Amino acid sequence: MTAQGQDDNQIWVSAEAITNFSHAILRAAGADEATATTTTDAMMHASLHGVDSHGFRLLPHYQAVMRGGRVNPRPNLKFTKTRAGTGMLDADDAHGARALYAAADHAADLAREAGIGAVGVMNSSHYGAAGAYTMDLAKRGMGGMVFGNSDSLVRLHDGAERFHGTNPISIAFPTAGNPWLLDMATSSVPYNRVQLYASLGVTLPEDVASDAAGVNTTDPNKAEMLAPLGGEFGFKGAALGGVAEIFSAVFTGMKISPDLDAMVGGDMTRPRGVGGFVIAIDPEAFLTGPMFIAGMEHYLTKLRNSTPRTGARVMAPGDREWDVAALRAQKGIPLDPVTQASFAELTKTTGLSL
Amino acid sequence: MTAQGQDDNQIWVSAEAITNFSHAILRAAGADEATATTTTDAMMHASLHGVDSHGFRLLPHYQAVMRGGRVNPRPNLKFTKTRAGTGMLDADDAHGARALYAAADHAADLAREAGIGAVGVMNSSHYGAAGAYTMDLAKRGMGGMVFGNSDSLVRLHDGAERFHGTNPISIAFPTAGNPWLLDMATSSVPYNRVQLYASLGVTLPEDVASDAAGVNTTDPNKAEMLAPLGGEFGFKGAALGGVAEIFSAVFTGMKISPDLDAMVGGDMTRPRGVGGFVIAIDPEAFLTGPMFIAGMEHYLTKLRNSTPRTGARVMAPGDREWDVAALRAQKGIPLDPVTQASFAELTKTTGLSL
Repeated sequence: MTAQGQDDNQIWVSAEAITNFSHAILRAAGADEATATTTTDAMMHASLHGVDSHGFRLLPHYQAVMRGGRVNPRPNLKFTKTRAGTGMLDADDAHGARALYAAADHAADLAREAGIGAVGVMNSSHYGAAGAYTMDLAKRGMGGMVFGNSDSLVRLHDGAERFHGTNPISIAFPTAGNPWLLDMATSSVPYNRVQLYASLGVTLPEDVASDAAGVNTTDPNKAEMLAPLGGEFGFKGAALGGVAEIFSAVFTGMKISPDLDAMVGGDMTRPRGVGGFVIAIDPEAFLTGPMFIAGMEHYLTKLRNSTPRTGARVMAPGDREWDVAALRAQKGIPLDPVTQASFAELTKTTGLSL
Repeated sequence: MTAQGQDDNQIWVSAEAITNFSHAILRAAGADEATATTTTDAMMHASLHGVDSHGFRLLPHYQAVMRGGRVNPRPNLKFTKTRAGTGMLDADDAHGARALYAAADHAADLAREAGIGAVGVMNSSHYGAAGAYTMDLAKRGMGGMVFGNSDSLVRLHDGAERFHGTNPISIAFPTAGNPWLLDMATSSVPYNRVQLYASLGVTLPEDVASDAAGVNTTDPNKAEMLAPLGGEFGFKGAALGGVAEIFSAVFTGMKISPDLDAMVGGDMTRPRGVGGFVIAIDPEAFLTGPMFIAGMEHYLTKLRNSTPRTGARVMAPGDREWDVAALRAQKGIPLDPVTQASFAELTKTTGLSL
């Protein structure tokens, strides 16, 4: 591998090198051009902005599900416009990135005509970081909302079993600079954070995970499920998980979280029937463009200059991500030891090297 | 007063009696028929479902702002359709309930045509519980989303001053029975909860309020601001507050929270320039109606029957509210001692009695 640097057992590779590697690996797994490009773009969004759980570490998994048949590497997407502002996208078991970028395109077209557009996505799969698609919309001057569900990991409020997935909600708005970008799980933390703390022998924060009886625990070895966002007020986090569930699965007739096959370790040959939901909103259907951007700047200036807690900095949603992206644009994309090993394995089986 | 019962210094009055009283008081304050009816309906929604902070305790305040001129009691609402799915409602400084019920009507009309409809509300005022308007949409078979802002009370993540209001987000979906209904502040608790705990000398829950330095405190007497939902993960709650802020104030060109006059104790003669935002979504633009309702039933049945924590019950968003509504339909609407006294004062000045 052409490492740019090394640090804490991580190696850092250039964006260009990993883009080319990812694209070639996916093409070798049978992906058509659009699938290879969009899947790589979605992983790059995550890896560049520090959402490493959804970054290039997923490449070996994604190429495996394309080879196995769970994900259709050459899908024939079918979009049906149902009314002036709505439509359904049958993704033909495409990779989630292929499906969601296409859904964002259609939602933007609908919003240009109708002011607001919503697209339900059927027969898709794991799409990585939802923020990739809302950011795509924000860069075109559109407000964007993306909802998703995933296999059960999070208990309900007062619940004692895994029910919702970490069900993401991402919302982005255009500004004069980088978009305003929220990309959140409706649990407090992702499950791989719990696994990481267990392997490091570190205590979990309060109220992020629960034992088999649904009682919150800070012992990562006793954690059997995640808790919904909000601690004592977890009914709010669980309800937000429900919003993501209803939009992505009920509005689309797809599988709800407790009915979904597991992403990791599930049957690699059977499509999972994952849904998704994208809303695009054109600010110019409400205000003239300059007025909206001026309003965002007024709000963000006031926010970033508001009094911080001692030693802290007040940030707008996304600011932390732009900082990481600026650093990684210089330093490269980090690959952890497990990912390095799985890439070496890919090189062995395909002959393609990073 | 014609109390139905008495309990803990509260009296319970019939829904019919308090509806008539509220309507008459607002008419006497100069309200036109639509304003008196919608304002009463919004308070009834809150009082019936246990959201007492936004219930009939606000009647004395609402009639005072109509008499003072802050709220226009006979507004001339102007709706402008901007595209197939969007429009702007200039509420002419109407009461928020008059404005939001009208915006929900327009959003539903747009959604019937375009599949999804969004209405920005300008020149409105405090609208009480956002759930009144999403529930109105859900009862017509529409998904509904309502966003609002309010004067500064909640610090930002890592912030040490009041910035956002308790900025509500309400989302509702139709089901075969009562709607699925989320109506949440993006803080953990409302500010009057902190004041109540201070007067009772009770310790606050962790992570709901902060001292003047922005450090969380459980001492209600030291609480200078609310904390955003999420505790350590308050960047999520603060971002959700931002979503409500951007939709309700930036998309409409209205005032952001830090620029808003205070609701309580502010100038009673000057309109506050409050915005709002309503989205309606027709499930039949995505699935046939019976399929959507069947999907909701499958989801809700699985949710309500999932394993609870020992001694607890798993509820869908809204279930607690229907329980309260069923009780209050029997027992009446409770009035606390402060509200009883302010109603007695209203009777003295208007000659109208409950």
